[in-house]
Amino acid sequence: MKELEKLLNFRPEIRVLDATLRDGGLVNNFYFTDEFVHSLYLTNLKAGVDYMEFGYKASREMFDESKFGKWKFCKDEDIRAIVGDNDTDMKIAVMADVGRCDYKNDIIKKSESPIDMIRVATYINTIPGAIDMIQNAVSKGYETTCNLMAISNAQEKDVEVALDLIAQTDVKVLYIVDSYGHIYPEQLVRIIDRFMNAAAKHGKEIGIHAHNNQQLAFANTIEAVGDGVNYLDATYNMMGRGAGNCAMELLLGFLKNPKYNVYPVYRFVQDRMAKLKEEGIVWGYDLQYLMTGILNQHPRTAIQFTEDGRKDYADFYCELIGRD
Amino acid sequence: MKELEKLLNFRPEIRVLDATLRDGGLVNNFYFTDEFVHSLYLTNLKAGVDYMEFGYKASREMFDESKFGKWKFCKDEDIRAIVGDNDTDMKIAVMADVGRCDYKNDIIKKSESPIDMIRVATYINTIPGAIDMIQNAVSKGYETTCNLMAISNAQEKDVEVALDLIAQTDVKVLYIVDSYGHIYPEQLVRIIDRFMNAAAKHGKEIGIHAHNNQQLAFANTIEAVGDGVNYLDATYNMMGRGAGNCAMELLLGFLKNPKYNVYPVYRFVQDRMAKLKEEGIVWGYDLQYLMTGILNQHPRTAIQFTEDGRKDYADFYCELIGRD
Repeated sequence: MKELEKLLNFRPEIRVLDATLRDGGLVNNFYFTDEFVHSLYLTNLKAGVDYMEFGYKASREMFDESKFGKWKFCKDEDIRAIVGDNDTDMKIAVMADVGRCDYKNDIIKKSESPIDMIRVATYINTIPGAIDMIQNAVSKGYETTCNLMAISNAQEKDVEVALDLIAQTDVKVLYIVDSYGHIYPEQLVRIIDRFMNAAAKHGKEIGIHAHNNQQLAFANTIEAVGDGVNYLDATYNMMGRGAGNCAMELLLGFLKNPKYNVYPVYRFVQDRMAKLKEEGIVWGYDLQYLMTGILNQHPRTAIQFTEDGRKDYADFYCELIGRD
Repeated sequence: MKELEKLLNFRPEIRVLDATLRDGGLVNNFYFTDEFVHSLYLTNLKAGVDYMEFGYKASREMFDESKFGKWKFCKDEDIRAIVGDNDTDMKIAVMADVGRCDYKNDIIKKSESPIDMIRVATYINTIPGAIDMIQNAVSKGYETTCNLMAISNAQEKDVEVALDLIAQTDVKVLYIVDSYGHIYPEQLVRIIDRFMNAAAKHGKEIGIHAHNNQQLAFANTIEAVGDGVNYLDATYNMMGRGAGNCAMELLLGFLKNPKYNVYPVYRFVQDRMAKLKEEGIVWGYDLQYLMTGILNQHPRTAIQFTEDGRKDYADFYCELIGRD
């Protein structure tokens, strides 16, 4: 809650990343139509979004292509079919998970790809794998981020060591990922402090990717803005795994940089996102996610609860507590 | 975001007020069944809630009793039918609006009433009326609060003067009311500072009543906890006007005082609140409320939008902008 005096102004270094296809893809197995994706691309351009994440670069050895939409694999030609040469100010990002990406083969030279940024997602126990992926992507010409997942479950000393290792690479952004939607703003301040220390030493930026289990995704994101975090993830209508993410419509309503424009976001939510919900795709805040969030657990049990159409929240809570 | 070190402990002075019937009553015209209200009362007792607000003491001269449920009027005998002599640790509150309450007649002596607390709701331009109501209620033996509504629309100097006037009365709690759901946590810190100044001088407590237009009702409430605010309003499943309020289930999950117990809240949401939603009663975060929140407007246009079943959010935004 710093920078009070700057609330009416803006920090030009801030970058907004649209993660709708990637985190939202976890909800619908990446089955977005090309028309949807193209419309989202055009909307992001109008809205002034800085980065659009198209999905994962998942290994086609490990995952059956027939069981997922194409944005789990983000082939360069599929992205190019949407964006052409992307002759715009907006950059294209994809995510690559440590241990689930054939990055040496599937990520080609940047000069031949429409992709600008590789976001390497890692848990605290696979840092060397992440570093190898980061350096591989950097050597091919990409911007990179390192997204430290499930940060609320990691020991503080481990995070310190991990950040020190990662910050010595050529990575551009160190991302705080509250995968479980567990973190309160007060705790986030402390985590940001730790990231800031590593970032300042090595000239890195910091990013935030929040989940809405406790209706704090937007609150934590703007807390982070106040604390100097410059890379902000959001999704349209909060579409994302489980309780979803920070809403693009909330975030662009908050940011004061005139390059951002919230109106096209409203229109896209109205015309496109509402339709997904009508088609039965379910995401967003609900009690089962609040519970796994408070308990600092992976949302997979809550997602199963949702998929099973269960409504016995109180019994689910007893199951969660009983599992401890 | 102060008191970081106290996140694992609790402040015993904190009080939680359940405003479900009162703010939620604005959504369904106060038509709660006696069975619902009695079940809510029992649940609040189990959950350790400190105050339960039953509704308004609205003037029966001004409002047609046949057009509202009984909790708009909160006759003493109706409350007593639910709580008996309320021989519990939980106190009973009602709200009385300046200019809409025949307080001299309708509020009887506390010794003859099941009510413990009168919450006087006022805008910045009706402070003398609020003071008269406060002193009248105090003279009859009640605890009182003064709820300063639409605080985001008031001039800072006016708020200072108003607080100084109110704090000189025998009121117990000065309430910050973000009626429009406009306030960001950074701004709230500044508002709390101002309330703290007046409160410290005159030995008053501070309370917070938040709305969820920007998904910040819970975030602002816990920001307030960190800043020393002790009286916290919440509603089950966030039921309240427009975008609703701070969720009881989120708040009790955050507070660490062992007297609070979130499990009965989960059960009530499952068994009772879900049913209200099924019956077609609509509240909660949606784009139209986000828009009036950001624009610092009364939510009445957004409520109308909802009642009309409209989904053309982007056009609604143009209407709002056009009205300025």
